Amino acid sequence: MNPRPVGESAGAVLAELAAQGRTLAVAESLTGGLVAAELTGVPGASKVFRGSVTAYATELKRDLLGVAAPLLQERGAVDGEVARQMAAGVRRVLGADWGISTTGVAGPEPQDGQPVGTVFVAVAGPGGVQKVAALRLNGSRSDIRRESVRGVFELLAGELAGGPANEPIGNARAQDTEQNGGT
Amino acid sequence: MNPRPVGESAGAVLAELAAQGRTLAVAESLTGGLVAAELTGVPGASKVFRGSVTAYATELKRDLLGVAAPLLQERGAVDGEVARQMAAGVRRVLGADWGISTTGVAGPEPQDGQPVGTVFVAVAGPGGVQKVAALRLNGSRSDIRRESVRGVFELLAGELAGGPANEPIGNARAQDTEQNGGT
Repeated sequence: MNPRPVGESAGAVLAELAAQGRTLAVAESLTGGLVAAELTGVPGASKVFRGSVTAYATELKRDLLGVAAPLLQERGAVDGEVARQMAAGVRRVLGADWGISTTGVAGPEPQDGQPVGTVFVAVAGPGGVQKVAALRLNGSRSDIRRESVRGVFELLAGELAGGPANEPIGNARAQDTEQNGGT
Repeated sequence: MNPRPVGESAGAVLAELAAQGRTLAVAESLTGGLVAAELTGVPGASKVFRGSVTAYATELKRDLLGVAAPLLQERGAVDGEVARQMAAGVRRVLGADWGISTTGVAGPEPQDGQPVGTVFVAVAGPGGVQKVAALRLNGSRSDIRRESVRGVFELLAGELAGGPANEPIGNARAQDTEQNGGT
């Protein structure tokens, strides 16, 4: 119930990006503004954070972030490749060096055939860096949203440190970037 | 320090919109995701809430929300007419019945010549309804952000009730809609 660790993750990510002279954009689905809110809770965030898109309605993932329509039709919104395209899309549309994204099922009901707690987070960065992590989370809707925020900050922190996320916290599991031709 | 009232405001607004069969989109600046996060914290929010844009960098208010560039150049981002155009823009871009927005100075530093605590919130809805409220808020960065969230929910609740917000909480002050030709 202590929110401090997530806030510290936001602060650490912002400090590292500022030190590297890089900017950040965020695309959210199940977290619905929480990732952006954690970042903008840190004074001076505007040096790094350009903005965010919460694409809660599935078609906004296509219209605002450029996620491929056939992919959304075939797999629904809760999918690792959707997360990857959301991160790449928000990075491009908002003109940032790094893009991060969340999509998943916070509950209380399953969605798109996926059980509550199924979450994908992704990172897209300079030089074609792209990474997706699948999370299986337990707890309340609030718990799942908060752990998703933590998960995407951990994934980004790992990439900013120069390599794959080592020992992601909780039950995060790093995957190889999925490449499906964007369709 | 008790966040419950803001959450209750979000729930009440969502319930009223659902009862009216209407959808909602959000454009945020100083609140940086908090308005969206409060809404999506409510189970079933997806029936009403389409999504949000956090346009933290000033040029994203122009690029993503269609706020007039000369307006931003002349007055900066902390302005009632900017708030009005953000609400109207996010309503249009995200295809929602109602759009709401926040812009202002959370601190710790003044911005665009405006002191900390200067906040504008706006609502745009069906039939050309547009409303802007100017808030003068005190307290910490966190306090100012949270009271801004409350202020925009109060403004929307007043409009959904069919008229001007009566007795806005805190130091909210409803203004006539500013009409400056959009330039």
